[in-house]
Amino acid sequence: MSRPTPLSGFPELLPAQRLAEQAVLDSIRRVFELHGFASVETRAVEPLERLTRKGEIDKEVYVLRRLHADEGSADSGLGLHFDLTVPFARYVLENAGHLEFPFRRYQVQKAWRGERPQEGRFREFTQADIDIVGLDALPFSADVEVAQVMTQALVGLPLPPVRLQVSNRKLIQGFCEGLGATDTAAVMRAVDKLDKQSPEQVRGLLRDEAGLSDEQAQACLALAQVRSADASFADQALALARRYGAGSELFDTGVAELAAVVAGCAGLTSARVTVEADLRIARGLDYYTGTVFETRMSGYEHLGSICSGGRYDALASDGRASYPGVGLSFGVSRTLVPLFARGDLRADRSVPSAVLVAVVDEESRSASEAVAGALRARGVPTEVAPSAAKLGRQIRHAERRGIPYVWFPPSGEQGATAAGHQVKDIRTGDQADADPGSWSPPALDLRPRLVGPSFPPPSTEEHRP
Amino acid sequence: MSRPTPLSGFPELLPAQRLAEQAVLDSIRRVFELHGFASVETRAVEPLERLTRKGEIDKEVYVLRRLHADEGSADSGLGLHFDLTVPFARYVLENAGHLEFPFRRYQVQKAWRGERPQEGRFREFTQADIDIVGLDALPFSADVEVAQVMTQALVGLPLPPVRLQVSNRKLIQGFCEGLGATDTAAVMRAVDKLDKQSPEQVRGLLRDEAGLSDEQAQACLALAQVRSADASFADQALALARRYGAGSELFDTGVAELAAVVAGCAGLTSARVTVEADLRIARGLDYYTGTVFETRMSGYEHLGSICSGGRYDALASDGRASYPGVGLSFGVSRTLVPLFARGDLRADRSVPSAVLVAVVDEESRSASEAVAGALRARGVPTEVAPSAAKLGRQIRHAERRGIPYVWFPPSGEQGATAAGHQVKDIRTGDQADADPGSWSPPALDLRPRLVGPSFPPPSTEEHRP
Repeated sequence: MSRPTPLSGFPELLPAQRLAEQAVLDSIRRVFELHGFASVETRAVEPLERLTRKGEIDKEVYVLRRLHADEGSADSGLGLHFDLTVPFARYVLENAGHLEFPFRRYQVQKAWRGERPQEGRFREFTQADIDIVGLDALPFSADVEVAQVMTQALVGLPLPPVRLQVSNRKLIQGFCEGLGATDTAAVMRAVDKLDKQSPEQVRGLLRDEAGLSDEQAQACLALAQVRSADASFADQALALARRYGAGSELFDTGVAELAAVVAGCAGLTSARVTVEADLRIARGLDYYTGTVFETRMSGYEHLGSICSGGRYDALASDGRASYPGVGLSFGVSRTLVPLFARGDLRADRSVPSAVLVAVVDEESRSASEAVAGALRARGVPTEVAPSAAKLGRQIRHAERRGIPYVWFPPSGEQGATAAGHQVKDIRTGDQADADPGSWSPPALDLRPRLVGPSFPPPSTEEHRP
Repeated sequence: MSRPTPLSGFPELLPAQRLAEQAVLDSIRRVFELHGFASVETRAVEPLERLTRKGEIDKEVYVLRRLHADEGSADSGLGLHFDLTVPFARYVLENAGHLEFPFRRYQVQKAWRGERPQEGRFREFTQADIDIVGLDALPFSADVEVAQVMTQALVGLPLPPVRLQVSNRKLIQGFCEGLGATDTAAVMRAVDKLDKQSPEQVRGLLRDEAGLSDEQAQACLALAQVRSADASFADQALALARRYGAGSELFDTGVAELAAVVAGCAGLTSARVTVEADLRIARGLDYYTGTVFETRMSGYEHLGSICSGGRYDALASDGRASYPGVGLSFGVSRTLVPLFARGDLRADRSVPSAVLVAVVDEESRSASEAVAGALRARGVPTEVAPSAAKLGRQIRHAERRGIPYVWFPPSGEQGATAAGHQVKDIRTGDQADADPGSWSPPALDLRPRLVGPSFPPPSTEEHRP
């Protein structure tokens, strides 16, 4: 067998990176579950007709065929899901009779897209979604809740500063309607390009593609520049509506909803996680009908939004019932893989073990295993040295894996006294007598720590798997 | 959209089942990590040439093609992995320079096989593997360790009684060689069929396909019937070797290794998990070279082995180095999905929430949210009622999800006094004053419990997510 090489677009993690990813996933899962969200996993495949409803996504789907199926009818009719929303909508329809609504679920799974890989865009990637789905109706408070839950999930992670940007389709659509702009979808598509194109280019789109007058285009551009981390956006937006005669009932509803989301998150933010109204955010996808979310990470703006979502009046519908929903999707791979690549996030060891128990000689291996068993019984991840090598080599075995403590069972050798057990912190060199029946490492050493070197030191202490 | 129907062979879980699966996965992960095993995840796809090395498995592979790729070159050259061993071997080769050996990893992921579905055999299924892999050499103690770790993982689960059956290829091969049987592979293939065919049929195979004499066949059948949960198998095997003149150095090594595995697990078993030497076990696959494992679950014998593995001299090899390994693979879906289907395992609620905080009216929703925030800050999973419905309806909201407690914030209404907060255990009807700043439910109510109705009551109390 020759040495294999990585597959472009299918990132894999080394053990220390995977430990960091697990710490991140454990942390967000804890937040989701503290809020009562239940985990759902859906199968990796969907019937092709379900994956190809939105024309634009067709070419990105991976289709499955069985290797030795009859020629001619090779395709299974199944494709790998490209997000977690399409399979979740199908799951809700399929199991509606067995679910309790409003149904609050989180889902952490891989998805696949056959598109050209680039930084933060992969062919296989992990997403973490939360959604609340109602049966025929869903209170607006669900919008506030998903924003609060995801804000708390992000606050728990040692990421570079992130900005959750919130807007509201009703606000924008109401503004357009008040303004007399008829093709509001075209307006939103144009405004959505503001982070890639200049205001002048977008002004051109608003005139040429949305059919706006110069003044209407000016009004929309002015609205798109409104932004605040508090309720002051509302005053600015209302002033613009008055100035351009763009008020409407829908607009007022949108302003009130957006204000409620921003206010609901205000007490939950941190120095590194902010939540703000940003009226430039419109999301390209047509199915959002109210609140919309995007998220930018400082120093990683080229990744685009790392956490997006919004309110949709019909996640799914089966003719008899409709299922309105609101949700957010955090791009786990999109966020973490670039951080790992730049060394901005890692774990401080490559194994869960906090302790390596040395083996004096193979005859006394069972004594070393008894020590390990005693430590594990108190929840201390522990491994036993694989061979009775020289103690220096056993210490290096721990060092290379980042295991902080080496335990020396009694022996006549250098590592421990003949009388009793000793444990050494190999970071400091401190070595002391210890009782396998009662010793535990400090709580911070029990599990690998996340280290984010370019961020303030507190973040490396606070965040644990 | 019409109501979708399930896809045969792609099992999906309802929320309460998924909570039970998570509890099982959390429990085994904890055992693996306490022993210092590091998590690895590999991508879902491998190049086809890597998946098709073992001819027999060809037809089961799902091949990927991009939906709108150029006709003619539609296939991506990639297939979904059908187990976790092939991708792990590739991962080890690819990353050998970045890994520390012996490398101890666990891997919990889905795999896919395009074969005909039946109970316990799925097209998409989750496996949980542990392996220890060495660089050029691996001490035999690793065989004992993986057996010990998997035994402890199984002991932690509320399954029907399971029997981990251990044998050793060296023992069987050494016996055959001592006996003068030349085609030991044919002997092992024949013996491996003992759980599906009668001794007489296997005797026929031993004569016709392995070319054994009547006495040789009799010796092999006698050996295959040796079985013990302690070291007594060794006496029986040695007696047979003497009687049939089948001793050899390899045989003696195999007996000693098997005795060491059984002795190493003896102190770790439970009333529901036994570990025994069973010389009938030979595993069909050719790459095992020493210890081999299979596992049967009581009442579910038709599933075949739910946890299998063994020792292989070369998990992988790249010409310069070889990577001997030993490992075990627990069939998570194979085990759990049939248990769920028969109602033999479930969680006692369908959401993580331990408490539902009632909402008196929408104006006071923020007061209910403050209570929830205080409970969550102490690690109590809590949700707030989605609407200010009648309190009876809010209580039913909790009941339908299995949430044990409903919290009533102060109000003039029936549910609580005007003065203070009250909390009700809706299983008993008990209601009492409570302080949001200090109340916590009993520890057993914090998380969903696993319930296995057909097993002894203690198992439902002991095992928690």
